[in-house]
Amino acid sequence: MNQNQEIQKLVDGILNKQIRYIAKAISFIENSEYKIKKPFLKLIFPYTGKASIIGITGSPGAGKSTITDKLIKAFRNDNKSVAVLAIDPSSPFTKGALLGDRIRMQSHTTDPFVYIRSMASRGALGGLSQATKDAIKVLDAAGFDIIIVETVGVGQSEIDVVKVADCVVLIFAPGFGDEIQAMKAGVVEIADIYVINKADLDFAQKLFKEISDIANLSQKQPKPAVLKTIATNTFQESGIDLLKKEISNYLNFIKNSSNLAKKRQYFIESELIDTLSKAMIDKILSNQNIKSFFDKATIKKIYNKELNFYTVIDKIMEAI
Amino acid sequence: MNQNQEIQKLVDGILNKQIRYIAKAISFIENSEYKIKKPFLKLIFPYTGKASIIGITGSPGAGKSTITDKLIKAFRNDNKSVAVLAIDPSSPFTKGALLGDRIRMQSHTTDPFVYIRSMASRGALGGLSQATKDAIKVLDAAGFDIIIVETVGVGQSEIDVVKVADCVVLIFAPGFGDEIQAMKAGVVEIADIYVINKADLDFAQKLFKEISDIANLSQKQPKPAVLKTIATNTFQESGIDLLKKEISNYLNFIKNSSNLAKKRQYFIESELIDTLSKAMIDKILSNQNIKSFFDKATIKKIYNKELNFYTVIDKIMEAI
Repeated sequence: MNQNQEIQKLVDGILNKQIRYIAKAISFIENSEYKIKKPFLKLIFPYTGKASIIGITGSPGAGKSTITDKLIKAFRNDNKSVAVLAIDPSSPFTKGALLGDRIRMQSHTTDPFVYIRSMASRGALGGLSQATKDAIKVLDAAGFDIIIVETVGVGQSEIDVVKVADCVVLIFAPGFGDEIQAMKAGVVEIADIYVINKADLDFAQKLFKEISDIANLSQKQPKPAVLKTIATNTFQESGIDLLKKEISNYLNFIKNSSNLAKKRQYFIESELIDTLSKAMIDKILSNQNIKSFFDKATIKKIYNKELNFYTVIDKIMEAI
Repeated sequence: MNQNQEIQKLVDGILNKQIRYIAKAISFIENSEYKIKKPFLKLIFPYTGKASIIGITGSPGAGKSTITDKLIKAFRNDNKSVAVLAIDPSSPFTKGALLGDRIRMQSHTTDPFVYIRSMASRGALGGLSQATKDAIKVLDAAGFDIIIVETVGVGQSEIDVVKVADCVVLIFAPGFGDEIQAMKAGVVEIADIYVINKADLDFAQKLFKEISDIANLSQKQPKPAVLKTIATNTFQESGIDLLKKEISNYLNFIKNSSNLAKKRQYFIESELIDTLSKAMIDKILSNQNIKSFFDKATIKKIYNKELNFYTVIDKIMEAI
């Protein structure tokens, strides 16, 4: 089989919702350059845009994976198919904890309408990789009703999720640095819905009040909902159905108010500029003539003030 | 006076270390496009590279501004001149607190060898702006021995500081979400020196131990120092001289081991690619022919699947 036939087979498998082709496609995306995966992405693009994309973020220990796990169940009760992309920072320090989280979600492995996949964030400093954005397209084309993107709230991936998710849920837990958490909610203002998880713990009410005050000041339309949950793996559990309802309400609101169209057009525009920017830089770096401006010797000369940084920029721009 | 004469006057003023020209130059940089400020940056570039650049970051409330304030004093005692760039996230929620911090630093306003300036981070989501990087060049050319870049440890600016500072100091305080803080130290691994501030508070020793364990696992050369400080505006104070000493030791170590040269060459390379990337995008967006691919109608067509995202990219790349 040639490259085109293989790509067509992947596409067919995805459109038929075959898990092994979905998994294969995501691996292909993770391991291929733009040039190689572009024909594939072009073929699936017409089938994207139907899924609702939900971002779940929050500090380590806030209970993101447990809430994701419970949300899967809640959406399945409504007969919706759910895919999860769990974004892990590539750090030796967190591997254990995060793998533990993933294992909690294993209860869904026998359900063919649930697909869970871990992906690495871009470098140790976080940030959603292009592969994550492309994996969303694969799951969307495969017809999943709900795609949950779960990111650790440390660094850039938490911020990037705003550029891919229709609805961002930010999860807090009392005792996990309440002041920082409240500050984050204010400074970053990424969330469409705030959740105070572990609401049975001390100070949950205080945190709830603080976050509610911040949500009230928000300029967002609609103002972010703030709700309390208790998500555990034992008997006690509350608020998850309410969370599911708030997510659905939010999605309906933005659909009907044309805010969803605006959001998604903004996503498209950002991705267009990002992709072009990367394509241009790739083009520049693959041009031997221009690349000579970037070699170690040149950088060293700039460092030693033998060359002026801005003269080098001028020369490269002229050469292009 | 024409543009060139005005720029020359700015440059002369900076090289003569005149505060009002330094202030003027930073405002000029903040308010001008690359094209306009490039001739100015080109002129000061040969005078840069002498200052030591120290990044100070940490969660809100950890005591960054107070430590910065005490560090200014400590460096002044060594007869070193100090400039501070305090990066504020542009958020209505934090304005008050941060202005309060700045006021604490006012005690140095009569010292001509100290210059303190607030700058906005790039958007509400943080990130060091190009203007911040260029302001560092101005202060460097003006001959300040030490330039402190103080960023709030929320979002991107905390991560970006790694790309401008010779030495990054990450400040913690017990009780401010210790688990999150320790996690951040591990996941992000941005710091060259860790500080446990408010070391007189409960649990400081526990946090100190946790951070020490993380620092011990670090691959960095040298392994990050971990130290305890108490920085207050009242009588009690400790550890600041040790911090100053650790910073100086670190700077000496990287200078002698050629790590500083490596770091700075990496900074130059990153900035070169960033600047080129932005210049290319500017060029594309200013080309009417190409810009038509970006207009609202096109984005809407992509959104409605009347146009394929990847076909649009192909067409733009061809047009370029």
